[in-house]
Amino acid sequence: MKPLTIVKIGGNVIDNSENLHYFLEDFSALAGDKILVHGGGKVATDLGISMGVEAKMVDGRRITDIHTLRIVTMAYAGLINKNIVAQLQARSCNAIGLTGADGNTIKAVKRPVKTIDYGFVGDLDENSIGVGTINKLLEADLVPVFCAITHDGDTQLLNTNADTVASAIAVAMSAVYDTTLMYCFEKRGVLRDVEDDNSIVSEIRMDEFESLQAEGVVSGGMIPKLHNAFEAIKSGVKEVYIGHADELLKASENKGTRLIK
Amino acid sequence: MKPLTIVKIGGNVIDNSENLHYFLEDFSALAGDKILVHGGGKVATDLGISMGVEAKMVDGRRITDIHTLRIVTMAYAGLINKNIVAQLQARSCNAIGLTGADGNTIKAVKRPVKTIDYGFVGDLDENSIGVGTINKLLEADLVPVFCAITHDGDTQLLNTNADTVASAIAVAMSAVYDTTLMYCFEKRGVLRDVEDDNSIVSEIRMDEFESLQAEGVVSGGMIPKLHNAFEAIKSGVKEVYIGHADELLKASENKGTRLIK
Repeated sequence: MKPLTIVKIGGNVIDNSENLHYFLEDFSALAGDKILVHGGGKVATDLGISMGVEAKMVDGRRITDIHTLRIVTMAYAGLINKNIVAQLQARSCNAIGLTGADGNTIKAVKRPVKTIDYGFVGDLDENSIGVGTINKLLEADLVPVFCAITHDGDTQLLNTNADTVASAIAVAMSAVYDTTLMYCFEKRGVLRDVEDDNSIVSEIRMDEFESLQAEGVVSGGMIPKLHNAFEAIKSGVKEVYIGHADELLKASENKGTRLIK
Repeated sequence: MKPLTIVKIGGNVIDNSENLHYFLEDFSALAGDKILVHGGGKVATDLGISMGVEAKMVDGRRITDIHTLRIVTMAYAGLINKNIVAQLQARSCNAIGLTGADGNTIKAVKRPVKTIDYGFVGDLDENSIGVGTINKLLEADLVPVFCAITHDGDTQLLNTNADTVASAIAVAMSAVYDTTLMYCFEKRGVLRDVEDDNSIVSEIRMDEFESLQAEGVVSGGMIPKLHNAFEAIKSGVKEVYIGHADELLKASENKGTRLIK
């Protein structure tokens, strides 16, 4: 099978135009078939403030009410996505910006109301990804650039977690490609010592994950991230990479952390 | 050659959610390969007001300054485009929303500053349209839905007139398709008597256009519209239709005005 790289960048990369510039230069230079998934960043928050829409929180969780949905659709699918696409095009990377509604590429289910009503938030399942259409876009030499807006197939746009979108795409595309999923953020990988940026664990095998947790090497917010990454590997993704946005092209030089079976 | 229909809807259709609903139902039912181009509508103006950005006018012409560009990118490429796509998807029309940056489908040139600096406005020429990529999307059974945001190929997004976008796409796609260009708006076609909605001129041949102008049948704002339509026909478009958004499927029943060679 042909290789396919799915790269996720977080809001912190998008918020800094210089970081974004260098990241997109690297992403353009990345060889082979590839897909970019981007998060939101401060733009949506700033836009909400300038429009007088306050972020709505319930029990510390952000709620996507109808006003917030409008704002994230404008900010993620409009402003951020199209500026990323225009920047990639200027670097001869044939980007095409998408939400999950476009080509029915990501169909989500509105999160059911249990104790908290999250509003217009979409959850994904194993049938969410439109593999056939994404494959056709890749075969047309296009580079899909997804923001994390999805739809329910019944006219409703939904806000979805960008990490989840990236992982779901990587898993689903594993049916036709050898997929690598790369999470690029502000850390240089999984650290043995959170105080020491040079203490990167360069590789974690699935069977080592539990012992690293027991040793306390992996803790806090990194646990669910790694758990999800290994779930993706169990579901067919060949390799997951976690590293800094400015080291995208150095993944083969032992930078960052590789998660393997 | 296969037939291809390019439909343009104006802001007035978009502003009324009920009109838009019915129009999109009809557009979904339109047979064969098709492309939708949509204008802006009041959403951008309302968004500007809520963000405290005033519409900037010079000599009665709207200027796209950097703030306005951000707003139209959010409103047209984000909110309007993605909601149209989600509505079409719900009607089993496999829509994919695009700006001209996406897949480099429409490359424009920033309008040179002469007496007026229009700001971030993009003009099109005969090489603007990415026929190859649009063709690949159509062959993948996708229905491109364009908003009138383009790019210059050098990272800059640009605001472009939606009528011009529709016409340029129709002309360029004529190289590979038998194209029909349909302008759908709030009038029922070209009227002999502007006071009488039933006085529709059902057909105008290119050689009749001048005499109809001389007779005063065609006047005012209709003249540049018809002039552009006949320019498109001269450049390869098979037929241009001008009619009401709620009569899209009735074009074959002698509704609206057909312009032919």
